[in-house]
Amino acid sequence: MSAEMIKNAANRWVATEINGKKQAPFQGVGKYRPSGRKYGPPLVSCADFPSNGDKRVADLREALIRSGLRDGMTISTHHHFRDGDLIANEIFDIAAELGVKDLIWFPSASFSCHAPIIKHLESGVIHHIEGSMNGPLGRFTSEGNMRGQGVLRSHGGRYQAVQDGEVVIDIAVIAAPTSDFFGNANGVEGPSACGLLGFALADAQFAHKVIVATDNLVPFPCIPWQIQGNYVDYVVVKDKIGIPEKIVSGTTQITKSPDRLYMAELTAKFCDAAGLIREGFSFQAGAGGTSLSIGNFFTDIMRQRKIKAAFARGGSNKYLVEAFEEGLIGTILDGQTFDLDGVRSMRENIRHQDTSPFTSYNYHGKGNFASMVDIVILGATEVDLNFNANVVTHSDGYLLHGIGGWQNTLFGKTVILPVPLFRDRIPVIVDDVTTLVGPGELIDVIVTERGIAINPLREDLIEATKKSGLPIKSIEQLQAEAEAICGKAQKPSFTDKVVAAVKWVDGTVIDVVRQVEI
Amino acid sequence: MSAEMIKNAANRWVATEINGKKQAPFQGVGKYRPSGRKYGPPLVSCADFPSNGDKRVADLREALIRSGLRDGMTISTHHHFRDGDLIANEIFDIAAELGVKDLIWFPSASFSCHAPIIKHLESGVIHHIEGSMNGPLGRFTSEGNMRGQGVLRSHGGRYQAVQDGEVVIDIAVIAAPTSDFFGNANGVEGPSACGLLGFALADAQFAHKVIVATDNLVPFPCIPWQIQGNYVDYVVVKDKIGIPEKIVSGTTQITKSPDRLYMAELTAKFCDAAGLIREGFSFQAGAGGTSLSIGNFFTDIMRQRKIKAAFARGGSNKYLVEAFEEGLIGTILDGQTFDLDGVRSMRENIRHQDTSPFTSYNYHGKGNFASMVDIVILGATEVDLNFNANVVTHSDGYLLHGIGGWQNTLFGKTVILPVPLFRDRIPVIVDDVTTLVGPGELIDVIVTERGIAINPLREDLIEATKKSGLPIKSIEQLQAEAEAICGKAQKPSFTDKVVAAVKWVDGTVIDVVRQVEI
Repeated sequence: MSAEMIKNAANRWVATEINGKKQAPFQGVGKYRPSGRKYGPPLVSCADFPSNGDKRVADLREALIRSGLRDGMTISTHHHFRDGDLIANEIFDIAAELGVKDLIWFPSASFSCHAPIIKHLESGVIHHIEGSMNGPLGRFTSEGNMRGQGVLRSHGGRYQAVQDGEVVIDIAVIAAPTSDFFGNANGVEGPSACGLLGFALADAQFAHKVIVATDNLVPFPCIPWQIQGNYVDYVVVKDKIGIPEKIVSGTTQITKSPDRLYMAELTAKFCDAAGLIREGFSFQAGAGGTSLSIGNFFTDIMRQRKIKAAFARGGSNKYLVEAFEEGLIGTILDGQTFDLDGVRSMRENIRHQDTSPFTSYNYHGKGNFASMVDIVILGATEVDLNFNANVVTHSDGYLLHGIGGWQNTLFGKTVILPVPLFRDRIPVIVDDVTTLVGPGELIDVIVTERGIAINPLREDLIEATKKSGLPIKSIEQLQAEAEAICGKAQKPSFTDKVVAAVKWVDGTVIDVVRQVEI
Repeated sequence: MSAEMIKNAANRWVATEINGKKQAPFQGVGKYRPSGRKYGPPLVSCADFPSNGDKRVADLREALIRSGLRDGMTISTHHHFRDGDLIANEIFDIAAELGVKDLIWFPSASFSCHAPIIKHLESGVIHHIEGSMNGPLGRFTSEGNMRGQGVLRSHGGRYQAVQDGEVVIDIAVIAAPTSDFFGNANGVEGPSACGLLGFALADAQFAHKVIVATDNLVPFPCIPWQIQGNYVDYVVVKDKIGIPEKIVSGTTQITKSPDRLYMAELTAKFCDAAGLIREGFSFQAGAGGTSLSIGNFFTDIMRQRKIKAAFARGGSNKYLVEAFEEGLIGTILDGQTFDLDGVRSMRENIRHQDTSPFTSYNYHGKGNFASMVDIVILGATEVDLNFNANVVTHSDGYLLHGIGGWQNTLFGKTVILPVPLFRDRIPVIVDDVTTLVGPGELIDVIVTERGIAINPLREDLIEATKKSGLPIKSIEQLQAEAEAICGKAQKPSFTDKVVAAVKWVDGTVIDVVRQVEI
């Protein structure tokens, strides 16, 4: 915990060791080059697997025991079930019963439903979490209660870390809405259908042992096989692997807030004025109410101009699917379905293509899809005067969100952050972000309910929109307007204790999170 | 060449070194266990790839130069274009122009169209071939003219060798009937459509540099992406990558020979009598005239009994597709399309699933599909009294065929070899096979035009068919009948020089091929 600190290329003091492992500090965007070779899990032989292909074992407990579960192992899960996941907690309950200690949990994301993990962190079953620490887990960590240090990675960074051998997964448990006895599995069919299983790809490819847990066993061969059974050691059939109503966030709706609707409209108008909405363009928008609204404004413009987007990236939902089925979008490159319309569309239409952090986000690959997207719409908890942004902590210093694909999508051609000028009377534009998650050089435009700030690096956008009549201001001006109303944001107080590291997409440490002083 | 010889578990004298590399001798079926970890190619960074995703370079020459082509490298190609391939020869013509020497060609198979490779073997551009050496290349090798030693592997063994790091591919050139500029590619669309690209999977995943050559560039994203662009370094657009008429062997027809038709009928009757044709069974049959005919007998029985096969494996053709579309087969797990009906069906029907040597055949995996198949129909050039079989050399000692998926499919539940008792008056059943490719313990039944021999190990089959009225005989009896007509097969004469090694599915050496004495 008292590891040496070093100032990285973003002027942030970061630890040179996390959980006893040496870390490379952030060296600037595109500066660090990895050395060595991709990780390879141990070689195995078909002679040690059932020749009839039937890999079923009695239950998860037996699968974990057969996988050699023991102290200190790294156990991975995926988050396609979101807040309806029933598997992660069960794994660690079993580990506790078996008296196993010091595990590392390596989820692709965590949700409120994972609050029971806290008791396993307290009892010593889990040493630390590498992955997003949302809600209660974030609070637990920020207050200095986790024995080890958290490691936050983007979706792409998680794939990169596994591929590069920074994280060696001992046992991956892949909850699968549909599977055959061989472990070929998908997320598009079955009572717990969640769309796809892309977040579990690295786990399947690189983990030493892979367990598939399903509540919908189908005869061999399960098609499509988003997870290939040839990577799978054991299959467990359960009554229920997730709570369907919570798997997809069915409540995702277009915002009704007048301020947010205005921000959405302003964002769409800006893109239009800048000439970004054109035949064959591409965009990525999230599932939040403002993003959904922006998507709708985009489709209005496309319909009016009779133009078509080549592809849309990102989580799918009924609005995106409607535009796709109307023919306004050529392809959906989908990393995560957010509702049942997304699941249905992916099941029915070959051009609603499931993707993975490998195809879309892995920075240690031969290119990825993220950098090919024309317009990227993202959120942030804070933005500073250098356009640096934060998504993991709030201005009170608490770790409350994961990175998700946020860092990865910053490589899009034009990155726009529609953010309110303040939240609960706390300004969003600050002098310096509490935690640096995205370097300002990759963030092009900030849209607020009182105006738009363009990153001075984007002279092209400034030029293109200067006669647009849009309320374009400097970021300082936007900050001043907010502070005139709310006053300056108060800085939270921290101890010296580093509770978590924030990785950049290349595995270097871009910032650390410190314990909140309470 | 004068490496030490050792007797392996199949009583064959094999070289302990091939091309200067140490070799493990065959240790028996399922006995050898690999150690170590899967191979990982060098780590790369997106910072070194075009952010707009456009990886096109001017031509194949430029792509090879940028890939660092130099003496001693291993260059891989796939054989989905079969005898219509235009790429492999061009690669080595370019290498010759550039003055590069001592390359290793690592194709997934070779065809007669690759006869021009001989001049590059003679001139020193290519040192040796690791892959099937068919027709003219086999003759060239058998006569001792190749500087290095050939290494013959099954399709699964090729994947295994790459995955295990036995063969490190420096540059893979993947000819693709359709691709986008990022390298996402498939074989189902385009003027040179060949169905799938599964034989290039290992090459994409593990090669240090990957070049996609296409004659049908489509806008990003190319869907389906049988080859993922995230593995691809360069894309080359060409006028023509293959000769469509030769890509698919459109001449494949049901046999009209009365002897072969009788063998086919006998095989189907045997399967039926043994109770193997039942609801939910599975089978794999090749593209030869006899195999096609057996498939037709199977479907007649299925139609009559109103039963359905769960899946059929193997190369697809119009007969298999007809049965599939009639609803007699639930799924086609297809490793290689043999005609345009196969290509069309794969494009149109999600349950005509493309597979790869990874899913179907890799023996160093967590199971594979081959062992799950109920009935496997294969050919052979020779079978001996212990049911050992040969597919790579003829009784004259010449190396004339590749192994293909033959060794891999031996792991099926019942393996049947319909073979004529003699070919050109040379008996097929011999005392000892010229080259051991498949151990007799995995070969269950030999069907000839004069009777059926069941491997004594399969007491269950002997029992099940003893009252069937079928002409079941001992293999010795079948041999005696053939020899009564043709006389004993003459043994070919060999020098001591080992010209090629034959690998078993686990990478061990099951036999070697010696220079033919002429």
